[in-house]
Amino acid sequence: MNALAQLGMVSEHPSNNQTFSAPVSSDDEERKDYFVEKNGEKFAGTHLLVDLWGATNLDDPAKIDQTLCEAAVTAGATILHSHFHHFTPNGGVSGVVVLAESHISIHTWPERNFAAVDIFMCGACDPHLAVPVMQRLFQAKRLEVNEERRGRVVKK
Amino acid sequence: MNALAQLGMVSEHPSNNQTFSAPVSSDDEERKDYFVEKNGEKFAGTHLLVDLWGATNLDDPAKIDQTLCEAAVTAGATILHSHFHHFTPNGGVSGVVVLAESHISIHTWPERNFAAVDIFMCGACDPHLAVPVMQRLFQAKRLEVNEERRGRVVKK
Repeated sequence: MNALAQLGMVSEHPSNNQTFSAPVSSDDEERKDYFVEKNGEKFAGTHLLVDLWGATNLDDPAKIDQTLCEAAVTAGATILHSHFHHFTPNGGVSGVVVLAESHISIHTWPERNFAAVDIFMCGACDPHLAVPVMQRLFQAKRLEVNEERRGRVVKK
Repeated sequence: MNALAQLGMVSEHPSNNQTFSAPVSSDDEERKDYFVEKNGEKFAGTHLLVDLWGATNLDDPAKIDQTLCEAAVTAGATILHSHFHHFTPNGGVSGVVVLAESHISIHTWPERNFAAVDIFMCGACDPHLAVPVMQRLFQAKRLEVNEERRGRVVKK
């Protein structure tokens, strides 16, 4: 069962080389990506760029969908929509989870055991909590995490 | 007419506070995000993080969808899927365009005249070409562009 199904939402995983999509209806559609204040700085949200090397399970869109949704929920986020695309012949996956607090995206290169993930979260979420959930699936030998604060309000 | 409609693809823009999605079937589904080599460096792709301040048109998902799709095509990319979510009551928009060469995402805060965009493109695309197309719609007074090279191959 995939993550959206576990959450009682509809998701589909057709065969290779198809575009599939899981629009999610939710009663809780209020915006949750308000600006935050941390260590005296006001900003829109934290954007993690995560490069994974020596990773596995990079050619399985169902597992990746499940894991990214679990990662989002673990970080405290609300899922609005997920969409994953499985490329052939090399089996790479591109996908995104749209959140009430921004998004998570992934692009994988199985032939290089490489994946590029970005996790952008606002509000009370902690995107760093999403990383270990992904690491359980991908088992990357090397993780490079680059953190950017988006929308930093410059004090006058 | 929105961008996907102009391209002969199906897209929908329902009223506020609804999730909508434009899955796109394409005959050309081959992967286009192969690693590139530039100035002696080999890497997966270029990821631009663009913060827009003093911007307009941040509460119109149809216009934003159209503009991001036009920006993607201008940069040389192939659109696989687009999805935009319109929040109420403050009118913010979150959306993503999934590309054969990675993705473009946007999150807007109309109440602050702020938008956070990221443009991740691989292969022969030039993500910098997408920025002026967006600027035509958003008319930002200040643009902060942060460029990251994802998946840099370390030479041994």
